[in-house]
Amino acid sequence: MSQRKQRRRRRHRRPYQNQNGAEVGPAAGIQTLATADDPRNGADATGRPAVLRMLCCDGTQVDETTVIRPEQLTVAREKWPVVWIDIEGLDDEATNRLIGDVFEIEELALEDAVTPDERPKVEVFGHQVLVAARTVRFDGDAIVTDPVCIFLGDRYLITFRERLARDPFELVRDRIRHGRTRIGHEGCDALCAFLLDVLIDGYFPVLERFGDRLESLEEEALDRPSRDSLVGIHDVRNDLMTLRRALWPTRDLLHALGREPTPLVGDHARAHFRDSYDHTMELLDLMESYREIGSDLRDIYLASLNNRMNDVMKLLTVIATIFMPLTFITGYYGMNFDTKSPWNMPLLSYRYGAIVAAGIMLMTVSGMVMFFWRKGWLKRWH
Amino acid sequence: MSQRKQRRRRRHRRPYQNQNGAEVGPAAGIQTLATADDPRNGADATGRPAVLRMLCCDGTQVDETTVIRPEQLTVAREKWPVVWIDIEGLDDEATNRLIGDVFEIEELALEDAVTPDERPKVEVFGHQVLVAARTVRFDGDAIVTDPVCIFLGDRYLITFRERLARDPFELVRDRIRHGRTRIGHEGCDALCAFLLDVLIDGYFPVLERFGDRLESLEEEALDRPSRDSLVGIHDVRNDLMTLRRALWPTRDLLHALGREPTPLVGDHARAHFRDSYDHTMELLDLMESYREIGSDLRDIYLASLNNRMNDVMKLLTVIATIFMPLTFITGYYGMNFDTKSPWNMPLLSYRYGAIVAAGIMLMTVSGMVMFFWRKGWLKRWH
Amino acid sequence: MSQRKQRRRRRHRRPYQNQNGAEVGPAAGIQTLATADDPRNGADATGRPAVLRMLCCDGTQVDETTVIRPEQLTVAREKWPVVWIDIEGLDDEATNRLIGDVFEIEELALEDAVTPDERPKVEVFGHQVLVAARTVRFDGDAIVTDPVCIFLGDRYLITFRERLARDPFELVRDRIRHGRTRIGHEGCDALCAFLLDVLIDGYFPVLERFGDRLESLEEEALDRPSRDSLVGIHDVRNDLMTLRRALWPTRDLLHALGREPTPLVGDHARAHFRDSYDHTMELLDLMESYREIGSDLRDIYLASLNNRMNDVMKLLTVIATIFMPLTFITGYYGMNFDTKSPWNMPLLSYRYGAIVAAGIMLMTVSGMVMFFWRKGWLKRWH
Amino acid sequence: MSQRKQRRRRRHRRPYQNQNGAEVGPAAGIQTLATADDPRNGADATGRPAVLRMLCCDGTQVDETTVIRPEQLTVAREKWPVVWIDIEGLDDEATNRLIGDVFEIEELALEDAVTPDERPKVEVFGHQVLVAARTVRFDGDAIVTDPVCIFLGDRYLITFRERLARDPFELVRDRIRHGRTRIGHEGCDALCAFLLDVLIDGYFPVLERFGDRLESLEEEALDRPSRDSLVGIHDVRNDLMTLRRALWPTRDLLHALGREPTPLVGDHARAHFRDSYDHTMELLDLMESYREIGSDLRDIYLASLNNRMNDVMKLLTVIATIFMPLTFITGYYGMNFDTKSPWNMPLLSYRYGAIVAAGIMLMTVSGMVMFFWRKGWLKRWH
Amino acid sequence: MSQRKQRRRRRHRRPYQNQNGAEVGPAAGIQTLATADDPRNGADATGRPAVLRMLCCDGTQVDETTVIRPEQLTVAREKWPVVWIDIEGLDDEATNRLIGDVFEIEELALEDAVTPDERPKVEVFGHQVLVAARTVRFDGDAIVTDPVCIFLGDRYLITFRERLARDPFELVRDRIRHGRTRIGHEGCDALCAFLLDVLIDGYFPVLERFGDRLESLEEEALDRPSRDSLVGIHDVRNDLMTLRRALWPTRDLLHALGREPTPLVGDHARAHFRDSYDHTMELLDLMESYREIGSDLRDIYLASLNNRMNDVMKLLTVIATIFMPLTFITGYYGMNFDTKSPWNMPLLSYRYGAIVAAGIMLMTVSGMVMFFWRKGWLKRWH
Repeated sequence: MSQRKQRRRRRHRRPYQNQNGAEVGPAAGIQTLATADDPRNGADATGRPAVLRMLCCDGTQVDETTVIRPEQLTVAREKWPVVWIDIEGLDDEATNRLIGDVFEIEELALEDAVTPDERPKVEVFGHQVLVAARTVRFDGDAIVTDPVCIFLGDRYLITFRERLARDPFELVRDRIRHGRTRIGHEGCDALCAFLLDVLIDGYFPVLERFGDRLESLEEEALDRPSRDSLVGIHDVRNDLMTLRRALWPTRDLLHALGREPTPLVGDHARAHFRDSYDHTMELLDLMESYREIGSDLRDIYLASLNNRMNDVMKLLTVIATIFMPLTFITGYYGMNFDTKSPWNMPLLSYRYGAIVAAGIMLMTVSGMVMFFWRKGWLKRWH
Repeated sequence: MSQRKQRRRRRHRRPYQNQNGAEVGPAAGIQTLATADDPRNGADATGRPAVLRMLCCDGTQVDETTVIRPEQLTVAREKWPVVWIDIEGLDDEATNRLIGDVFEIEELALEDAVTPDERPKVEVFGHQVLVAARTVRFDGDAIVTDPVCIFLGDRYLITFRERLARDPFELVRDRIRHGRTRIGHEGCDALCAFLLDVLIDGYFPVLERFGDRLESLEEEALDRPSRDSLVGIHDVRNDLMTLRRALWPTRDLLHALGREPTPLVGDHARAHFRDSYDHTMELLDLMESYREIGSDLRDIYLASLNNRMNDVMKLLTVIATIFMPLTFITGYYGMNFDTKSPWNMPLLSYRYGAIVAAGIMLMTVSGMVMFFWRKGWLKRWH
Repeated sequence: MSQRKQRRRRRHRRPYQNQNGAEVGPAAGIQTLATADDPRNGADATGRPAVLRMLCCDGTQVDETTVIRPEQLTVAREKWPVVWIDIEGLDDEATNRLIGDVFEIEELALEDAVTPDERPKVEVFGHQVLVAARTVRFDGDAIVTDPVCIFLGDRYLITFRERLARDPFELVRDRIRHGRTRIGHEGCDALCAFLLDVLIDGYFPVLERFGDRLESLEEEALDRPSRDSLVGIHDVRNDLMTLRRALWPTRDLLHALGREPTPLVGDHARAHFRDSYDHTMELLDLMESYREIGSDLRDIYLASLNNRMNDVMKLLTVIATIFMPLTFITGYYGMNFDTKSPWNMPLLSYRYGAIVAAGIMLMTVSGMVMFFWRKGWLKRWH
Repeated sequence: MSQRKQRRRRRHRRPYQNQNGAEVGPAAGIQTLATADDPRNGADATGRPAVLRMLCCDGTQVDETTVIRPEQLTVAREKWPVVWIDIEGLDDEATNRLIGDVFEIEELALEDAVTPDERPKVEVFGHQVLVAARTVRFDGDAIVTDPVCIFLGDRYLITFRERLARDPFELVRDRIRHGRTRIGHEGCDALCAFLLDVLIDGYFPVLERFGDRLESLEEEALDRPSRDSLVGIHDVRNDLMTLRRALWPTRDLLHALGREPTPLVGDHARAHFRDSYDHTMELLDLMESYREIGSDLRDIYLASLNNRMNDVMKLLTVIATIFMPLTFITGYYGMNFDTKSPWNMPLLSYRYGAIVAAGIMLMTVSGMVMFFWRKGWLKRWH
Repeated sequence: MSQRKQRRRRRHRRPYQNQNGAEVGPAAGIQTLATADDPRNGADATGRPAVLRMLCCDGTQVDETTVIRPEQLTVAREKWPVVWIDIEGLDDEATNRLIGDVFEIEELALEDAVTPDERPKVEVFGHQVLVAARTVRFDGDAIVTDPVCIFLGDRYLITFRERLARDPFELVRDRIRHGRTRIGHEGCDALCAFLLDVLIDGYFPVLERFGDRLESLEEEALDRPSRDSLVGIHDVRNDLMTLRRALWPTRDLLHALGREPTPLVGDHARAHFRDSYDHTMELLDLMESYREIGSDLRDIYLASLNNRMNDVMKLLTVIATIFMPLTFITGYYGMNFDTKSPWNMPLLSYRYGAIVAAGIMLMTVSGMVMFFWRKGWLKRWH
C-alpha cells in the first residue's frame, strides 16, 4: 500500500524532476575542477562539484582525462580535431561559468543547458548548436527521464548531464577507445549523431517492459479485477505520458537536425539523424499503440467489474429462487388450520405427510437447479 | 455546500472576468492623474482613477515616480532611453485617453488594451507593438487570469493592468532598481521580454498546486468516492480549461514575437522570447498531462463507485445466503405435521431434537462462512 | 412533455432552417417595391414582397428612405458616397432580380445571397465582395441562426436578410443617424466591418445564457438526476453544435477579410475585421469550454445515477440485514419441538421467555443499526 | 430479426460494394454497342452489355441518341461543341475498350473509371480530367453509394456509371432538352459542374431522412430502451461512416477543381465548383453533427438502461420493505411461547388479539407506503 | 484458454516481430551463395544462408536463375536492362555484405534494409532509392506484417525479404515469365510499382476477413456477451493497430514516390504509384471504419451486459414479488392466536379454511403474473 502511495507522490511532481538519480556525487578520490585549486571557483561556488571527463581523438589516437584545470581545455581544443567534454552534474555553477567562458557559450544557452526540466529542442546560438535531449530510465517501477544537453561546436562537443548511477555514454566511450567508430575521421557532428542514437536506443527496452506490464495487467483485469489493477492501469498511462512528453519534442529536434541546413552538421551526420528520426517514429507508433491498449484495458476492467457484479447478482437470484419456494412450502404446512376438518390440509394428519412434503421440496429444488443449469448460471463463478 | 455553489457561480461567468481582484483601488494618499488638477479629466472622467507608475532608466541611472501630471510623460520620453509607464486600473477613461494622445496609440489598440476579456495576442499598430497577455492567480480555490497589455514603442513601454492586491511586476522593478538587469543598455524590447518571462513563470506554481489537488483527488476517488470528489474533479477540469484558454494564445504570441521580424524587437530580445516560448510549451505539455489525468480520475471514480456497489451486493448476498437456509430449517421444524406418526419428523419428539436442529443450523452457517471466506468476499469491506 | 417533443422536432430540421422568424411580413402600410406599380414584378413575382430600406450618408448628412421605385437606387448610387440598401425578406424573387440587375450582381452570387441555409463565407465576385454571415437568436429555448448576406461594392453595400421580429441592424442605423460613427468619411468597407461587429457581438449574450443553463443543469445532475436533466444536457449540446456550425466558418471569413488583399477593403476596415476575428476566437474558446462542460455533465449525470442506485442498494441491504435475523429468531421459536423435554428450547416454557426473546431481537437490531451507522450507510439518503 | 441480420451482413462488405443496384440490365429492346454487329466485341466480350446514351448540343440544338455503332461517336465529336456520352454499366469490357480507343483514354484512367470501389478523386491524365465521384441512394434502410466517373475532354464529356433503377442524370438531360441551361454555350466544363452539383444535391434528402431516424431513435432510447434501439443507433453510425467515406474525398476533389488551374476548366465552371464545394461543406457540417448526436444517443441509451435498472431496484426494495416487517410480525405471533404465563405474548390469548395484530400490520404498511410516496419512488414506473 | 494466452503473448512483442514465418529456411538442395565455395563468406558468416533469385528480362526475353556466385550478378547487370535480385532471408550477413559491395549500397541503407522492424519509408541514397514496405499475412488468427525492402537502382532492383512460407512475389514473377507485363520495356521503376501494387493488394483480403470477424463479434456481443467476446473485440482492435502502423507510413511513401521528382522514377511509374496511393487511401478509410465499429462493439458489449443484469434483476424482483406475499399469508395463518375467540382468525377453524387460504394465494399469484406480463418482464429472458 505504501508503495502505491510513494508511486503516486512521485508522479505528481514537476514532470522532468530528477529524484534520487541526482544524489550520485563524484566518487571519493575523483578530482574535479572545483576541488582543484583554481582561484576562480573559490567563494561563489554553489552546488556540488561536477565531474568533467574529456575525450579527445583523431583518426588514430584517443586520449581520455578528467579535467581539473581550465588550461587543459584550451590546450586540447587547439590540438585535437574532436574534443568531447562530458560534464556530469548540472548544479556546479562555477564549472558551468568556466565552460561558458572558455567555449564562448551564450548565457541564455548555458542556462537552458543546466535546467533539469528543459524540453527537448535544437537551437542554433551563433557558432554553436544546442541540442537538449532526455535519457530514460526506470526508477523502481516508475519511468524517469533525465536531461542531456549537447553543445556542438566547430571542433568540440560538450555534454551536460545529471549525476546518474549508470553512465549512458559509457558505450560510446568504449567504442571510441577500441577504435570501432570512425568519429575521429568524421568529426564532432558524427559524435553528436552517435550520442543521440544511443539515447534513442535506450527507449526501446523501456517500451518492451511496458509490453510485459500491459500483458500482466490485461490478465489481471480479465481474471481478478481489483482496485490495484485500476491503479496499475492508471500508472501505465501516467508513465506513457512522461515518455510522450520526452519523445514528441525529440522527434521534432531530430527532424530539424536531419533536414535543416547548418554548416556544423555534414551530410553524413544528417543521414544518421534521419535514421534516428525513423527510430523515434517507431517508438512513437509503438507508444501510441500502448496508450490505446491502456485505455482499452480500462474498459476491460470496467467490463470485468460488471461481469463480476452480474455473477454476484446471479448467485443472489439463485439463492432466492431456491429458498423462497421452500420457505413458502414450510410456511404452508405451518399454518394452524383446524386439522379436524378433512378439507383442511389432510396431509398434516397423514402418516407419511412430512415425507411427502420433503419430497415436494426436493422436486422443487431439483427443478430449479436444472433450470439454472440450462441457463448456464451455475457454471462460471470466478 | 454553499462554498461549492459559490465556486460554481464563479465558474460560469464570462471567462476572463475579474471578480474581487478589481476591488483594490489606489491606496489613500497616492496621487493619481485623476486626482491632480488636470482640467481635461474633469466632467467626463468615468471609472475609478488609475495609478501611473513611471520607471525610467539608462545604463547607469534609475528614476521612479508616480505620474500625476501629463507633462511628466513627455519630459521623460525625451530624456530617457527606457521609459516604462505602468498603469494600474483599466477603467479610468480620462487617463486612458490621455495616454493614447501622448503616445499616439490608435483608438482600436487602446480599446483592446483596456478590455478585461482580451485574448492574448500580438499585433503591430504602426509604430507600436501591442502585446496582450494574461497573469494567473488563485482566487480562493479557483484559478483566475487577469489581462496585462503591453505597448512596446520606440523608446518606451506602457503596461495596462488590473488593480490587483499583488503587483506581478514588483520583481522586475526591484531587479532594475538594484542594477541586476541590463535593460538600461538593451532597451525596451528586453524589458518587454523580461515582463513576459515573469508572467509565464507565474504559471508554474499554479500548475504545481494542480499536481497536489489531483493527487489528493485520486486518493479520495480510490478510497472514499463521494459526490464531493466528483465535483472536485469537475472543478479541476474547469480550471484547466481556464488555463488553456490563456496559455494557448500566449504560446502563439511568443512564437510570433520570437520568429517574425519587427524593427522594434532586436535579436537579443527575440532569443528571450523563444526561451519564454519553450517555457510555455513545457507548461502546455504539463497541462495536457493534467487534463488527461483529470479524465482518468473520472473513470477511476466511476470504477470505485462500481466496486462499492459490488461490495454492497456481496454483503446482501452473504446475508441472504446465510439466513435463507436457516429460516428454511426453522420453517421446516415449524410445520404442523402430526407427530404421533413416527414417520413425520421424529426429531420434533426427540429429547435432544432442538439441540440437533441448532447443530444443523450452526454447521450450515459455518459452511457458508467458509465458502465466502474462500471466495474472498469477507475480506474487503471498505 | 409536449414541449420537449417540440424542441426535438425543431432540432432535427435542416440546420439553418428558419421557423417562425420568417413569418414577420412587412407591416401593413409599408410600401414595398412589389406593391409599387413596377411593371417588371407583375405576373412572375413569387414570395412575399421584401422591404427595402435605403440609408445614404456622407461625412455630414444622412438620408433614410424606404425604396419603392428602382429609379431611387440609381439616383442614390450616383449622389452619395455611402449607400446602404437593406433588404428584408429573401424570397421576393422580383426584387432580388431587380437588385441584381441594378448592381450587376452575378447570378450565382445572388443565388447564394438568398439561400436561407448558406454557410458563412466570403467570396470575391468581380467588382463585389460577398460576405455571407449568420445572426443568432433564441427561439423559445432553442438557438436559431439566420442568414445575413452583405454585398460590398465600390460605393454601396447591400444586405439581404430574413424578416425578423427584431432588426439586428437598428443599432447601426441609430449610430449613423446621430452622427456617432465616421462611416460617412470612411466608406462602405467600414460600414461592413461595423455590421459584422454587431453580428458577432450578438453571440455573447447567447453564450452567457448558456453558462446559466449549464450551471442549473449541473445542480440538477448532481442533486436530482432525472430523465429531464439528460434531455436538457443533450439539448445544450445540440445548441452548441448549431452555434459551432455558424461560428467556425465566420472565423474563417473574418480571417480572410482581415488578411487577404482586396482593393475594396481598406487598411482601417481590415483592422476592424481583425478585431472582430479576435472576438470570434474568444467566442469559440468559450464555446469549446462549454462543449467540454456539457460532456462532463453527462458523466456527472451518469455518476449521480450510479450513486443513487448505490443508495437504493444500501437501503435494500439494510432492510434485509435487519429483518432477516429477526425473522430467523421468530422462526426459531416457532419450531414445534416437544417442550416437555427440558433440552428442547426451555425458553418456550419459561415464564418471561417472550420478553427475553424480544430482548434478543432488540439487541440484534441495535447492533445492526450501530454497524450501519458506523459504515455511514444511514446518512445520505437523497 | 432476420432483417437485422440482413442489414448487418450488408454492412460488413467492402465499402462501396454495389448490391442489387447492379442488377438492372438494359431494358429489353434497347440496342447496345455489344448487341450491334461490331466485329471487335466478339469473342472476348465479358460482362453484360452497357447502354451508351449520347447527348450532343450547341447553343441552339440538342440531339439525343443511343449509340450502337462506334462511328457515331467520331462523327458526333467532330460536329458538336458539347458531346456527352453516358455509359450505363461498368463491366462491359468491350465497350470500355472501344471508348478508351476512340477518346484516347489512358489505360490506368480507364481502369479507375470502371472500378466499383473507386474513391472520389480528381486526376489529370494528359488532355483529360478524370473526376471520380459517388452518388448516394437508399437500398431499403441502408445507405449505398455508387460510383460515377466523369472524363472531361476538350469538347466532350464521358460518364461511366452503374446500371441503377433511377437515372440520377435524368434531371440534367431534361433541363438541356428544354433549353433551360446555357451548357451549349458554355461547354463541357459547365456540364461537368452541373452533373456534380446534381450529385451533391442528392445527398441532402438522404441526410434529412437521417434527421428523422435520429429523432425517432432518441424517442425510443429515452422511453423504451431495447436491444433494437441499440442496433438502430449502431446502424445509423455505420451509415454515416459510409457517407463520410464518400463525402470527404468529394470535398477535396471539388476544392481542387475550384482552385487549381487546368486549361479544361474555365472561370465560370470554377465558380460553380466552388459553389458545390460550399454545399459539400454544409453536408459535412451537418453529417458531423449527426455523428455527434449518434454518439450522444448511445450515452442516452445507456443512461436509460441505468434508469430502468434503478426502477427495478426500487420496486424490489419497496417490496422487501413492505413485506419483511409484515412477515416478521406474523413470525412473532407464530412463536410457541407458553401462553399460560401472562408475560408471554398476552395478545395471543386476547379476545381481539388477531384484529390488533392486523391493525399493527396495516399501520406498518401505510407508514411504508407514505414514506415511499414522499421519496417519489411510487411515481415513475415506466 | 491457452489459445487466448498465446495470442496475447504474441501481441505484446515488439510490433513487427516475425515469429514463425522466419523459420522457413532454404529448401534442401537449393544452393545459396553461402553454400557455394566463395572464399569471402568463410569464417564470419552468421545467420542462415539467404536464397538469391535473379530474374533478368528485356522486351523479349526472360532469364531466371538462383545466384550462387557473385560473378553472376555483375555479368547480369551489364547484359540486361532489367535485373531483379530477390533475396530471401535478412540475417545472412555475408550475402548482405556482398550485395552491398556489388551494388555500392551505403552501409546505413543496407542496415535499414535488413532490420526486421523497419518502418515503411522511402529514402534516396545517392544513386539508389530505398523503399521499405511491409507485407501482411495471417499467423493463425493474428495479423503479422513482414518487412520487404526494395533498392531501386539504374537498371536493377533488389528486394530483401523474410523467409516466408508463401512468396508474395510469385505472382509478379509469373506474369513476367508469361510476358503479360511490359516491364521489360518500361524498366525497373515499373517493376517497383508493380511489386508495391501487389503488396498493397495483399491487404484487401485481410481487411475483408476483418469484416467477418466484426460481424460475428457483433452477433456475439448482442446475443451472448461473454468474457471471450470482450477479448475478441480487444484482439481485433490490436490487429487494427498493427495494420495501421504498417499502412499509414506506406501511404506517405507512396505519396512521396508519386509526387516528388527523382530521376530514377519515370512518369509512367509515377502514375502507378499514385494509383497504389489511392488504394492505400481506400484501405485506410476502411480500416478507420473498422476501428470505429470496433469501439462501437465495445459499447454494445457493455450495453448487453447491462441488459443482462437488468434481466437478472427483473427475475429476482419477480420471484420476490411472487413469494413474499405468499409467505406473508402462510405466516399470517401460522400465528398462534387463541382460536376460541370468534374474533381471532375464524378462518382457521372454518371447515374449508385452508382451501379459502389457498384460493387467496392463487389469486395473489395470478394477479402478480398478470402485472408482470403487462409490464413485459416475463418475455425476454435471453
